[in-house]
Amino acid sequence: MFVLHPRLAADTVPLLVWPLCHVLLMNDSAYPWLILVPARPDIGELHQLSAGDRAVLIEEIARAAEGLAETTGAHKINTAALGNVVPQLHVHVIARFRHDPAWPRPVWGVHPAVPYAESGLADLRSRLRRRLGGE
Amino acid sequence: MFVLHPRLAADTVPLLVWPLCHVLLMNDSAYPWLILVPARPDIGELHQLSAGDRAVLIEEIARAAEGLAETTGAHKINTAALGNVVPQLHVHVIARFRHDPAWPRPVWGVHPAVPYAESGLADLRSRLRRRLGGE
Repeated sequence: MFVLHPRLAADTVPLLVWPLCHVLLMNDSAYPWLILVPARPDIGELHQLSAGDRAVLIEEIARAAEGLAETTGAHKINTAALGNVVPQLHVHVIARFRHDPAWPRPVWGVHPAVPYAESGLADLRSRLRRRLGGE
Repeated sequence: MFVLHPRLAADTVPLLVWPLCHVLLMNDSAYPWLILVPARPDIGELHQLSAGDRAVLIEEIARAAEGLAETTGAHKINTAALGNVVPQLHVHVIARFRHDPAWPRPVWGVHPAVPYAESGLADLRSRLRRRLGGE
């Protein structure tokens, strides 16, 4: 049975449930940042997914990336499956800007997450749900 | 027409040409590190590829990841498409070890690349070509 890793649950707010992935919004106001988690138990690596699930995953990544880019006006999308700390397979899809705090470096480990103010979080969440959910 | 970005050409040695991607070996002895570059001109983001190319790409990523893991005994594979510095779409597939210099952080920006000694490079290249090329 699939259960979202507690660290991912603690660091994010839920956005949508797609055919394969739970779509989460990272609670870090420094970067509009989605996390896609395939709802499959005991998977740590992309190559442990079935080929059928991988075909869905890459389309869900592309859909998340395009929607995030259009919603935010990002200059670049960064996509990554790392998992050195949280072993459950999860894919980062991050909107990057030439003026963001880590540019041009990757975002991880540059500084601690800065949680959104409540209204900022509600606004972004609503815009992303509308764009990504087809509502 | 597709031309490999000069920065990618300078930092790597060629391994194989797959149906979609050029498979390159990063010349950094700190981590066994592949780079997959879809041979398509003027593509910077995953979502700019066609859906058909994306389906091939995710399978080539999985094949690279599994082969790299088996060849090296890696504890974890890190996969990422960043592109903040080199705009041509390229996917990092990196073998990580709990004793490597950046663990558990991502590898980028931790320290400059340490090129392989000639014999070490030839040996790894030959093992990876055999495993990934089906030779």
